[in-house]
Amino acid sequence: MNKHKQRSKETRIRILNAAESCFAQSGYDGTSVAQICEEAGLSKGALYHHFSSKHAIFLELLDRWLTAMDFQMADLGGDPTNVPGKLLSMSAIIGTVLRVPRDQLLIYLEFANKAVRDPQIWETTIEPYHRYHKLISGLIEAGISEGSLRPVEPKTAAQVVIALALGLLMQGFLDPEGADWDQVTDDGFRLLLNGLKVK
Amino acid sequence: MNKHKQRSKETRIRILNAAESCFAQSGYDGTSVAQICEEAGLSKGALYHHFSSKHAIFLELLDRWLTAMDFQMADLGGDPTNVPGKLLSMSAIIGTVLRVPRDQLLIYLEFANKAVRDPQIWETTIEPYHRYHKLISGLIEAGISEGSLRPVEPKTAAQVVIALALGLLMQGFLDPEGADWDQVTDDGFRLLLNGLKVK
Repeated sequence: MNKHKQRSKETRIRILNAAESCFAQSGYDGTSVAQICEEAGLSKGALYHHFSSKHAIFLELLDRWLTAMDFQMADLGGDPTNVPGKLLSMSAIIGTVLRVPRDQLLIYLEFANKAVRDPQIWETTIEPYHRYHKLISGLIEAGISEGSLRPVEPKTAAQVVIALALGLLMQGFLDPEGADWDQVTDDGFRLLLNGLKVK
Repeated sequence: MNKHKQRSKETRIRILNAAESCFAQSGYDGTSVAQICEEAGLSKGALYHHFSSKHAIFLELLDRWLTAMDFQMADLGGDPTNVPGKLLSMSAIIGTVLRVPRDQLLIYLEFANKAVRDPQIWETTIEPYHRYHKLISGLIEAGISEGSLRPVEPKTAAQVVIALALGLLMQGFLDPEGADWDQVTDDGFRLLLNGLKVK
């Protein structure tokens, strides 16, 4: 990467970080492009050189978050052996998400709120959900084949696994001091696996 | 109730329903008191006679929703026998919530979004969460005593049960056509119970 490209990339990241912090503090609707510029220490002209609109910044933030999730979920793919162990390793991913600073988590809640009203954000949000569902269904199917899991309906069981993960994230987010969420997550996955595994 | 009180109560409900439909369509921030008045067919004076602010209407809508939830959760209290059966009956409650019109569900998502920034809404939201957690912990404790559940940590297991419920609601809301959510909910609770029950 040449110097010019490198600097351009750094400016994009600076804008994204500034927007993330503004959105977290004031919400998407409560944040103006002018505020993002001020937080980033850039002129409007400089910002619009990199992003066409506040909406475009929002979509790229969402993309940045989902890419980080993909990176973590990658471990679940690949060789589908020892399925119970792999499913249990999902609880570590939840722990990592829960350690994301609360400021950032506020924005993801805003994403969900936008998603139901904005078709483009909706598509970006629902696509990885369907992808993870397929990945986990495949894993459960492999577990049934290898004889470690009972012959459940893989699609349904995957939705149950995802439900547990989402619900743990929600509670850990709403009531961070209410429990040792790492422990609850680990226990929760063990309980569910206990119901899924061949005895 | 005399005629005057009856009429006053009807006007309150008319305002709440109008606000609910405005919030669902445009979001809380995107809705003005003037719009609620127009939707309700009332003057601003009449609205302010019943509610001091848009915020007050929002809080009462939240209260109305939570009261409806309490009414449903009441079945779980009382005589704590046949605990697995009672826990399974929670899946029916989730089904009812999922049949709430999408318009209304949009507002509950907005509640969550407001809750993290507004201490009063936060209190109103977190209070029933703690109450349900206590209720379900007690139920699981009773199940361990009656010998139907394994000796798990009741508080943790209750958080796992709530996680499953919340995550199923989230998925049913984000992807209503993606599955027969009644079926997934029922299967999910059976799987988890299968992990909790004494064999």
